[in-house]
Amino acid sequence: MAETLTHIPQSTHPNLLVGFNQADDAGVYKINETQALVQTVDFFPPIVDDPYQFGRIAAANALSDVYAMGGKPLTALNIVAFPSNDLPPYILSETLRGGGEKVAEAGAVVVGGHSIKDKEMKYGIAVTGIVDPNRIITNGGAKTGDILYLTKPLGTGIVTTAIKRNAVDQTLITQVTELMAELNKTASEIMVKFNVKAATDITGFGLLGHIFEMADASNVTIRLFADKLPLFPEVLRLADEGMIPGGAKSNREYLTDKVTIADSVDENIEHVMYDPQTSGGLLIAVPKERAEEFERELAKQDAFGRKVGQIEKKADPAIIVE
Amino acid sequence: MAETLTHIPQSTHPNLLVGFNQADDAGVYKINETQALVQTVDFFPPIVDDPYQFGRIAAANALSDVYAMGGKPLTALNIVAFPSNDLPPYILSETLRGGGEKVAEAGAVVVGGHSIKDKEMKYGIAVTGIVDPNRIITNGGAKTGDILYLTKPLGTGIVTTAIKRNAVDQTLITQVTELMAELNKTASEIMVKFNVKAATDITGFGLLGHIFEMADASNVTIRLFADKLPLFPEVLRLADEGMIPGGAKSNREYLTDKVTIADSVDENIEHVMYDPQTSGGLLIAVPKERAEEFERELAKQDAFGRKVGQIEKKADPAIIVE
Repeated sequence: MAETLTHIPQSTHPNLLVGFNQADDAGVYKINETQALVQTVDFFPPIVDDPYQFGRIAAANALSDVYAMGGKPLTALNIVAFPSNDLPPYILSETLRGGGEKVAEAGAVVVGGHSIKDKEMKYGIAVTGIVDPNRIITNGGAKTGDILYLTKPLGTGIVTTAIKRNAVDQTLITQVTELMAELNKTASEIMVKFNVKAATDITGFGLLGHIFEMADASNVTIRLFADKLPLFPEVLRLADEGMIPGGAKSNREYLTDKVTIADSVDENIEHVMYDPQTSGGLLIAVPKERAEEFERELAKQDAFGRKVGQIEKKADPAIIVE
Repeated sequence: MAETLTHIPQSTHPNLLVGFNQADDAGVYKINETQALVQTVDFFPPIVDDPYQFGRIAAANALSDVYAMGGKPLTALNIVAFPSNDLPPYILSETLRGGGEKVAEAGAVVVGGHSIKDKEMKYGIAVTGIVDPNRIITNGGAKTGDILYLTKPLGTGIVTTAIKRNAVDQTLITQVTELMAELNKTASEIMVKFNVKAATDITGFGLLGHIFEMADASNVTIRLFADKLPLFPEVLRLADEGMIPGGAKSNREYLTDKVTIADSVDENIEHVMYDPQTSGGLLIAVPKERAEEFERELAKQDAFGRKVGQIEKKADPAIIVE
């Protein structure tokens, strides 16, 4: 989206608190003094064979943008393109069932949708959440000294590429499917409770791409600890075997002059850092004095979270990986 | 949508005032005592050659669902599928410019969107409007005695079919484009002011299809006056020449046992009544005692509106055309 739409005039409106010109996860529109809408849309072709699982993943992925901004999802609209001449109807109903379950798990409800006949299937949702306009979490709120947490392991792009090449067993398929279908709900609720100011979710631009956006929007430099990154099982081996999705290359090219990576960092870890994620974790910047307490709260609520870096005073480059 | 999704479980939620199981124009979700969200999404492939005009039409068409329920549009999310290898970028930017202009004309703002690469272009928007939860206008609120108004002339399906077959001149193309790009804003604001209870907008199911939905949801019979229907210029001639879109046939089949049409009604008028409309007018049921005043207000504000029928006590069939 960011790339495609930069050539059209950006929208402005007195109630628009966060627009898409800010490269943030979702738009935010104030409707009264205590409520603002957090809105986002995402849809794509199936990335796993099982339509029910695809529906779960697509919905979790779209909901994640609302969670990244500290919002509570309220409603969803189904976006469907379906080749009804080529695929049996249960493919669609299973997809919608999976998506609907995730919407319900988020405490939201499907209020409508639109489907068209198409050559290739696509599914996703437009999500509306609600947030206190005085407590919106954006990628621009990170402060020097903050500790950076990541709430899901990395490598879904590499693993799904390996799945497409029939290079992984069913156990790994099941694991990565569950990971992508997992909501960022608990981590989001905890960061709201801790009054965190900065977060984003890791998706198509990969870890480094989204970290760059946070560094840029927050006017800081971000230091990452490569050996602290949580990795999905077998992902380094799969990267080593060349299971690198196409998007990783463009992420790397875009970031070439924006990141310095220490020589000691393994080449396959680099691949993981550029790997486009589907329904990845939240990247949360927590003030240092509350970081330990935040970590304990994640653990207490059985939510995954790993300290991966820290926010530093702006320097050149925007990202340092050591 | 109605057809595709009937086989999946319907959503329920205490705040969901109108869901898509009610075959209404948009879903309505209450967020506080005085505000409810009205939400809808629509997107489709280009129906006119000019991308700017296509954008205007697609946006007006989606916004219409919010207007049909008496809502005020607040935000829009762009839904884009674009063959970036086959079409020049200006096609997309012109489409988004046209759509954005209509969103702005509605007083709303584009807060984000999603675009994917696809073989065939599609564009549309997900719209969120706001409505007083105590004053939602649905297709189920029509009462015996109400007078039925239609706010745009009929025949856009027939004319666009003729355009595809190169059978119309530029003047007619311009006229039908303007008609489809026109917002139902003024008529909607007037019906809200008049505290109207029942309305819908005329789109893919054609005049009779949407009238049936209103009759069914309101538990009434609707009488239509064929000679009062406002028609787009040359539409009867084009229908007579066989410019009938595919959707008209399925509309007719679906309604076969639900409508009685007098023998005196011209066959080409019948074609128009089944004709799927893009961004058609509002069909508004106004209490009889306020109908004349309503009509004067439309005229005063330069808004088109034609008396086309009346609501009667439920009988069999649901629709009588005389």
